[in-house]
Amino acid sequence: MTDDDFTVTPYAVQGDVDYERVLDQFGADELTEAERERFPEPLHPLIKRGIFYGGRDVEEYLDAIDEDEQVSIVTGRGPSGPMHIGHVFPLYLAKYLQDRTGAHVYIPISDDEKYFAKDQDFDDIQGWAKDNITEIMAVGFDPEKTRIVVDSADADVIYPWAAKFAKRYTQSTVNATYGDPDNVGLSFYPAVQATHLLLPQLVHGRHRTIVPIAVDQDPHIRLCRDVAAKEDYDVYKPSALLSRFFPQLKGDGGKMSSSDQNPTIYLSDDRDAVLEKIQTYAFSGGQTSLEEHREKGGDPDVDVAYQLLYYFFEEDDEKVEELAADYRSGELLTGELKNYAAEKVSDFLEAHQERKAALGDFDEEIRNYTLTDEERATLTEDLLY
Amino acid sequence: MTDDDFTVTPYAVQGDVDYERVLDQFGADELTEAERERFPEPLHPLIKRGIFYGGRDVEEYLDAIDEDEQVSIVTGRGPSGPMHIGHVFPLYLAKYLQDRTGAHVYIPISDDEKYFAKDQDFDDIQGWAKDNITEIMAVGFDPEKTRIVVDSADADVIYPWAAKFAKRYTQSTVNATYGDPDNVGLSFYPAVQATHLLLPQLVHGRHRTIVPIAVDQDPHIRLCRDVAAKEDYDVYKPSALLSRFFPQLKGDGGKMSSSDQNPTIYLSDDRDAVLEKIQTYAFSGGQTSLEEHREKGGDPDVDVAYQLLYYFFEEDDEKVEELAADYRSGELLTGELKNYAAEKVSDFLEAHQERKAALGDFDEEIRNYTLTDEERATLTEDLLY
Repeated sequence: MTDDDFTVTPYAVQGDVDYERVLDQFGADELTEAERERFPEPLHPLIKRGIFYGGRDVEEYLDAIDEDEQVSIVTGRGPSGPMHIGHVFPLYLAKYLQDRTGAHVYIPISDDEKYFAKDQDFDDIQGWAKDNITEIMAVGFDPEKTRIVVDSADADVIYPWAAKFAKRYTQSTVNATYGDPDNVGLSFYPAVQATHLLLPQLVHGRHRTIVPIAVDQDPHIRLCRDVAAKEDYDVYKPSALLSRFFPQLKGDGGKMSSSDQNPTIYLSDDRDAVLEKIQTYAFSGGQTSLEEHREKGGDPDVDVAYQLLYYFFEEDDEKVEELAADYRSGELLTGELKNYAAEKVSDFLEAHQERKAALGDFDEEIRNYTLTDEERATLTEDLLY
Repeated sequence: MTDDDFTVTPYAVQGDVDYERVLDQFGADELTEAERERFPEPLHPLIKRGIFYGGRDVEEYLDAIDEDEQVSIVTGRGPSGPMHIGHVFPLYLAKYLQDRTGAHVYIPISDDEKYFAKDQDFDDIQGWAKDNITEIMAVGFDPEKTRIVVDSADADVIYPWAAKFAKRYTQSTVNATYGDPDNVGLSFYPAVQATHLLLPQLVHGRHRTIVPIAVDQDPHIRLCRDVAAKEDYDVYKPSALLSRFFPQLKGDGGKMSSSDQNPTIYLSDDRDAVLEKIQTYAFSGGQTSLEEHREKGGDPDVDVAYQLLYYFFEEDDEKVEELAADYRSGELLTGELKNYAAEKVSDFLEAHQERKAALGDFDEEIRNYTLTDEERATLTEDLLY
């Protein structure tokens, strides 16, 4: 959807996003306070603080958790470059939910879509897929309950299902949702995406699945839900859990992205790099002089260092409130706030990087997360061989 | 392409086809007498008599045969119903060429495309795929040099390559070539088709491949040749060998088809069924009364019984000339000609059916024709696992 002031589509986010209006226009629901409180305890900051702020059929998903039914989570990655901190928060949310509910987590790697959409060659994308999967394995999911599925390498299960769903997607629906695609790969991709979102149910039978995802990706879910609603498939429509965009360091409202010229904090950044990037680039809500800041105070609502802490990196509610109050009063200086944020981000990254370093050889480690022969057989049982 | 008098596209053939004009408008070449004579001896009636009458890069293919280079043939099948005699002549031509040149024969089964294009469910299409593959195995190809590839069941190799080619196909090119597709599966399918046509080279390295196919399918080849010409792929453009449409029993010029209400001779028809269909339906070039026929003679050029013999079922050149002469003179009656044609068609079908009956269990037999582990590894070597 585009608007005078902002644009939100799966391929473009620009301008100052009015998050409520996006939900309205996509036809999704705002997450209510009551729904938020029904998430597993202790509430994750991403839920509690409204970073995930909208959804579809979230109520039904929470009901299934209450009933101790098996649930699933789908959260994917398009591998066209290194992962930054904006990419991992849905993954860490998924891990948090998996730890508390025993959810299956399915992580589709859409190397095909990135190849279709980007000016990168196939080998390049494969290299990033390997890199990104390594980052994902470092999150610490339960391998028994977690499946990483690569569109190309798992095409034996992905393509036959995508073909089945493709029959339900008219080209005009795809054009209307995404704009005219550049190539026929992008025309077909929504059917691949539908496969991703329904995969847990295709493997394990009908059960509730939720997709935590930035709000711009909601059209994928909406199209998939339309397909899932057709009588042929005995599945629930996937639920959606929709997030705001992770703050960009420069703070201009769109989503953090490594595809344009914005500086970003990568998962591989060390303490010095994080500190330097935050000090140099993080948009400040403080005043231009020390005196003025002490007198007038800063604005945490636009301060990116504060936003990073609020969104994800400071779990302690009292601490975030204290930081906001001190910043507003002028007691806390921009430099101090930046240093604190850099420290918290670095602590997080260091733990992530330690888990990454502890991983074994890729080819062996990935086998803990690929579909089992039995799961593969279930997914391909109606094929000729 | 459409014209005032006839239409020829991959999805529709109607009217009285001007075969030379089709080649002109598709941009393919007519097969010259000199080229025809360069095919392996003894010349196959389908070549000698101009049933295959056009092509692309046929010269280069014949050069490769002369140089004793490895060559390949690709000839596929879309499984949406039982196979009739019009479906097997390219397969029998392929077998004939394989016997004489040691060509690899690749036989793609486009169950995905049939599912996209037809109002049939996936299981139905799978049933026909099994049936049709059984017919194909009955042709008697050399299993060492022949590969049957099913788009769904072999998606592990088909989809990753189709994805690579898909990036090169714009939606507008596909729309211009085929008309606006009904669904995104059909949008994507030309990239799958490109994979089919390039598969021998993707497995065995660059070498000459020819595609014997009815002229209406030429747009698939043309698009694939455009993709193959891009610098990324070290392959030759596939050569095309383009045929006229096998005569319909009712004789109205379009291609034989089991998708409309035309009666057709199926590969499973027995002697009685063949005789009855030819006697009842085969358009006759004879006169309406015995006396008139004896006096004026018949016209073999429009007589379907004669056309069946001429196209494929009577290999003896002297015999076909004798039949034509006797028919023109009025000496040979329509009923006699039909009986003779029915006998020849039935002889052919009986031999085919005997080979079919001698096949073992499908699941075992098909393993003689599926891609080997080594071939599969070659095709997927750039994937992550």
